[in-house]
Amino acid sequence: MEKTELKDDKSKEVEEEQVVSPWEVSAKDGGKIDYDKLIDKFGCQRLDESLIQRVQRLTNRAPHVFLRRGVFFAHRDFNDILDSYEKGEKFYLYTGRGPSSEALHLGHLIPFMFTKYLQDAFKVPLVIQLTDDEKCMWKNLSVEESQRLARENAKDIIACGFDISKTFIFSDFDYVGGAFYKNMVRVAKCVTYNKVVGIFGFTGEDHIGKVSFPPVQAVPSFPSSFPHIFGNENIRCLIPCAIDQDPYFRMTRDVAPRIGYHKPALIESSFFPALQGENGKMSASDPNSAIYVTDSAKEIKNKINRYAFSGGRDSIELHRKYGANLEVDIPFKYLGFFLDDDAELEHIREEYGSGRMLTGEIKKRLVEVLTDLVERHRRARAAVTDEMVDAFMAVRPLPNMFN
Amino acid sequence: MEKTELKDDKSKEVEEEQVVSPWEVSAKDGGKIDYDKLIDKFGCQRLDESLIQRVQRLTNRAPHVFLRRGVFFAHRDFNDILDSYEKGEKFYLYTGRGPSSEALHLGHLIPFMFTKYLQDAFKVPLVIQLTDDEKCMWKNLSVEESQRLARENAKDIIACGFDISKTFIFSDFDYVGGAFYKNMVRVAKCVTYNKVVGIFGFTGEDHIGKVSFPPVQAVPSFPSSFPHIFGNENIRCLIPCAIDQDPYFRMTRDVAPRIGYHKPALIESSFFPALQGENGKMSASDPNSAIYVTDSAKEIKNKINRYAFSGGRDSIELHRKYGANLEVDIPFKYLGFFLDDDAELEHIREEYGSGRMLTGEIKKRLVEVLTDLVERHRRARAAVTDEMVDAFMAVRPLPNMFN
Repeated sequence: MEKTELKDDKSKEVEEEQVVSPWEVSAKDGGKIDYDKLIDKFGCQRLDESLIQRVQRLTNRAPHVFLRRGVFFAHRDFNDILDSYEKGEKFYLYTGRGPSSEALHLGHLIPFMFTKYLQDAFKVPLVIQLTDDEKCMWKNLSVEESQRLARENAKDIIACGFDISKTFIFSDFDYVGGAFYKNMVRVAKCVTYNKVVGIFGFTGEDHIGKVSFPPVQAVPSFPSSFPHIFGNENIRCLIPCAIDQDPYFRMTRDVAPRIGYHKPALIESSFFPALQGENGKMSASDPNSAIYVTDSAKEIKNKINRYAFSGGRDSIELHRKYGANLEVDIPFKYLGFFLDDDAELEHIREEYGSGRMLTGEIKKRLVEVLTDLVERHRRARAAVTDEMVDAFMAVRPLPNMFN
Repeated sequence: MEKTELKDDKSKEVEEEQVVSPWEVSAKDGGKIDYDKLIDKFGCQRLDESLIQRVQRLTNRAPHVFLRRGVFFAHRDFNDILDSYEKGEKFYLYTGRGPSSEALHLGHLIPFMFTKYLQDAFKVPLVIQLTDDEKCMWKNLSVEESQRLARENAKDIIACGFDISKTFIFSDFDYVGGAFYKNMVRVAKCVTYNKVVGIFGFTGEDHIGKVSFPPVQAVPSFPSSFPHIFGNENIRCLIPCAIDQDPYFRMTRDVAPRIGYHKPALIESSFFPALQGENGKMSASDPNSAIYVTDSAKEIKNKINRYAFSGGRDSIELHRKYGANLEVDIPFKYLGFFLDDDAELEHIREEYGSGRMLTGEIKKRLVEVLTDLVERHRRARAAVTDEMVDAFMAVRPLPNMFN
């Protein structure tokens, strides 16, 4: 569920255009991702204010900061999910992660933090796919190493606070088979090679594991892939994910009605920017581009102070005069993701944007917010035992999943 | 494990040449398959007399009629299997069937009759793959119908007399997953799309299920795909099959050493001819081209008398003068497969070939032989209960599999 490698052939071809695929995110000419253009190109919808208010009304709680701040900014049929929810119909959540690294960075946490909110707000079951098979194939990890990373990542995911009575986490290497495999075959029958080439840009020199994988990510969208949870109930599925995963689910939505399922609905986020600036996502291969959930308070402070791209001006005089450029300022953007207090964020926008607050001050505040977040995550993760991982990953019914 | 459809594009291209692939067998200009040419093209070896004598010596029993008569006529590394067997090393057998039809015909029985002989003679375990996933995808059957056919076919297979203490039968829809899926991914990583196009002739309009399938048929060649049977033992595998399956195992043999396994050895049969003559295999779609294991004695008699292509001459006078053309005579060929008595077959060759025996007489003898075979099979199949099917298909250790 994550981009991991550059497709040389493709990036050459489209050097001048932005590229967003499950394996590559690059803006045009090194600039910012144009999300409006992406929505047009992908054919999804903007998640507008009225939809957010509807979520608030239906769930009877404040919309998550990622909704209020436009982190989750696009959707497919999310309104249909809300319609059916309003009528008392059930749905479930599906998200996932490609376990390609030992430790998660803050960008990795975003879909899980948001999914936890959705689970709590709507009181719905959740399936979390760990695509260890994908990472084994794309990153050339061994089966065993991919599975080990999947289990390590599961601990970080569990630390986000999911409700074990409503959550099933699975590794593809463990879980593919039975009803899940049957759905994989049903999907594969409906998708030609030319179609996946059109969607994913595979070449003839790509191995057939890549060609085989899209159905694996598709079928958690269908409740019959989890007979131990959903039995024969054909309920709807809502997928919170970053927008680079849209190609998988465009394919899935195309196939779904042909094999008797609802099209999965999507709610899609923008990318969390690298410390160095907003022209893509954080990169697991450059440790200084990201804050990891394993970073110490000292490392966080050091990374923010040294690497966080600032919109502050070159001298105090110029800064006081013109104010910070909030459009490019990473500390301000990061606070937009992780500072829950709308009033304080608004205050910072005014003070920093007008030059009354200095770069050092906003960075200090960001260090506090992130240190606190990471420290809370670290404590939560330390409390996750192997038995808890086994319990979340056990193939079992979830009898109270809608309570 | 069986050819089922004509690939138009391919057959057009190579109209003048013989085509042997897992989905098509057609001789050049409607003539006979040239097996020598096939051995050259595929790069396998002829199974010669010295190898057959070695089998006799090692197993201390007469070689199976299919060996004596050259039905199994080609191999890959079968000598290595015998070398290691002689040294006391273990191996296992793997064969399979694509469950595309309710009832089997005689051609379908051949690999199973021969595999039973190998199991008895070498005292080795056997895995039998029912590729219900393949048939679901190639024949456009539903998942449920493919599984139903797999189970029906399992009854016919069990009726061939396999030893339940040494035999594991599995349906892909049931069994794909876990260690088996891990091996599928390991294989898929080693095979490019261009490679499978070269081997199997897929086109861009073929669905990705077809592209995904070759690893499914490959991995039963690796003992780690059956941890409940073989644990961690990396023993050799011998695959008895019709030669049209060679492409799958050429691919498998190419990959095997790259992922730490022995190349599977093969022992390969020619095709059982249709009643109408020897230019391909029997066809499930033309009931009059084949004797089915469900045919009544009357149907067998009728089919042989009406449809079995005869090498007898146009008049009794000519027949007495020139004798039958045994090269094209189907009754004589069928007796070559199913009449165990070498002396009697030799007698028939002389009498019929010289014209002393008439077409009606040899057909009468064939009707007796086949009626007996089919009747024995029918009785054996009637004795196969659902509990026995469950027992053969149970995922379980086989503690006495080498005794």
